[in-house]
Amino acid sequence: MGEFPVSLDSMRVAARALGDAVTRTPVLEDPDVNAMLGGQLLLKCENLQRTGAFKIRGALHRMLGLSAAETSRGVVTYSSGNHALGLARAARLTGSTAVIVMPSDAPAAKQDAVRAMGADIVPFERDTEESADVVADLVHRTGRLEVPPSAHPQVLAGAGTAALELLEDAGAPLDAVLVPCGGGGLTAATAVAMAEASPQTQVFAAEPALFDDTRRSLEAGARLANPKGRRTICDAIMTPIPGAMTFPINRALLAGGVTATDAEVRAAMRFAFTHFKLVTEPGAVVGLAAILAGRVPLSGRTVATILTGGNIDAARFSTLIGPDTDMKGNTK
Amino acid sequence: MGEFPVSLDSMRVAARALGDAVTRTPVLEDPDVNAMLGGQLLLKCENLQRTGAFKIRGALHRMLGLSAAETSRGVVTYSSGNHALGLARAARLTGSTAVIVMPSDAPAAKQDAVRAMGADIVPFERDTEESADVVADLVHRTGRLEVPPSAHPQVLAGAGTAALELLEDAGAPLDAVLVPCGGGGLTAATAVAMAEASPQTQVFAAEPALFDDTRRSLEAGARLANPKGRRTICDAIMTPIPGAMTFPINRALLAGGVTATDAEVRAAMRFAFTHFKLVTEPGAVVGLAAILAGRVPLSGRTVATILTGGNIDAARFSTLIGPDTDMKGNTK
Repeated sequence: MGEFPVSLDSMRVAARALGDAVTRTPVLEDPDVNAMLGGQLLLKCENLQRTGAFKIRGALHRMLGLSAAETSRGVVTYSSGNHALGLARAARLTGSTAVIVMPSDAPAAKQDAVRAMGADIVPFERDTEESADVVADLVHRTGRLEVPPSAHPQVLAGAGTAALELLEDAGAPLDAVLVPCGGGGLTAATAVAMAEASPQTQVFAAEPALFDDTRRSLEAGARLANPKGRRTICDAIMTPIPGAMTFPINRALLAGGVTATDAEVRAAMRFAFTHFKLVTEPGAVVGLAAILAGRVPLSGRTVATILTGGNIDAARFSTLIGPDTDMKGNTK
Repeated sequence: MGEFPVSLDSMRVAARALGDAVTRTPVLEDPDVNAMLGGQLLLKCENLQRTGAFKIRGALHRMLGLSAAETSRGVVTYSSGNHALGLARAARLTGSTAVIVMPSDAPAAKQDAVRAMGADIVPFERDTEESADVVADLVHRTGRLEVPPSAHPQVLAGAGTAALELLEDAGAPLDAVLVPCGGGGLTAATAVAMAEASPQTQVFAAEPALFDDTRRSLEAGARLANPKGRRTICDAIMTPIPGAMTFPINRALLAGGVTATDAEVRAAMRFAFTHFKLVTEPGAVVGLAAILAGRVPLSGRTVATILTGGNIDAARFSTLIGPDTDMKGNTK
């Protein structure tokens, strides 16, 4: 795996560096659910991670690698919320400060939480601006270092510690792992971890049906963007295009891409609520939704997915786990 | 501890007998919550247990101790839901059948789930009938064995396996443990586990303010009943009086009893939702509610509570974690 910017070894280094600053989240299963589904379903619960999402793993690992001068100048990033929360917390933990470029339609709960962690928010318009331009301008004007959501080897290694724990705690050989996929960092890190330590495990990118840029790009063999103007309830993974650093990894290692509709995502949130007593955000259950919709065979196999986060406010959660006939959740 | 019907040794026996038929639920903490509260808060997450509550531990351990003839004749119990679910599942797992005497005001979701597990329900009226009479009549007429929610040494030993795991997984000496208390079985088992293995740990019974029979009984030194006709949102622990087998243990070993109002319980459910991404039922967070209300000091200490269950339907959960001004949740 020497050709990739992240490796199992770099994830092990990250795991040691992170220590107990991040939570070793549980891998949950329910024998009654397994009996009902006819296969073994494993949930790596990063919704139970500190700051409510896996993103702190990568953000903190990157911050721990900064020089004193870089730490002092502070950091900047683009994020719809979970990476923002992770980076804001990581900045506090390392004595630094963070500025977050955040889409103006990001959930209010996430914006409020980011501010509560002491970070400054610079709003941007998803449909008319490019987040990269706004971030580049901030870097230029402020001297802050950019800590991207995935496009840095240390961010990828940090994210990969979740896959490392899944491998160690699964208790059974994994036939497949489905990873909710935005920019593709956690997906790529998981793919590398499995390729090195469990090569028989198929890794799939799981995406919202209307944001299936990685799936289409995998089929085309080149990075394809999503059309502007689309929306999904999966706010955490409404990314415009596969990452330039992550896509080559995903193209080389993934078994493919699968999708789930917003209605299937809501059903998966209800499933996690009813059968696992877990609060999940929509973008976190795209893999679970794809499994429940039968897009990857489960029968007689062991299939895992990473529940990537649980940052959602009570009102929105209530709407999304509410009756199907209330479609507000699909247009929010 | 030879004077008690349950011991650390009997819990270890139960843990071996149960094996992986029950889940070793995680003990969760969040460093940011700890910083906010000024102490270490540990949550033993039995809401993540198979069947959604700790009760299966005791029910299954008891069922595993039955003779072939007893298993074949089947079992009967009284339960408002969680013990019913545990016993129904345990009966299925051991090739037996279960009949459940259930209050007619038990949550519909629990009644439906009990039926879905193949158990029969016999309704009873909380305010005009005594559950013990209904159960005794069923035992007499059907020859089924009663598996009580707590008043049997094997049920207590099974419940105690949760306390055993908490001790092993806490990672720090426990200053106090708060246990949501209905009949007092889990409380008593936890008290015995701590008294034997961690005698410096204070164990408290945590009860709804209007169902504080154990707290009042501890003060009086004798079992006192709750007045008939009262209600609380904590359906799982609306018990009429401390158990005859459990109260002597609790009287001997508990540091005391604490209470929480329904409004404090709702706040604790919201806290678990927001900070831990956990679905809890009201009766499961009475200990957490008491901690958050400052009834047991947390500052500079390590305090654990057992989240006993998460069996609640989406509509009721949404109401209870909704705005304070919506008081429907308090009268449901």
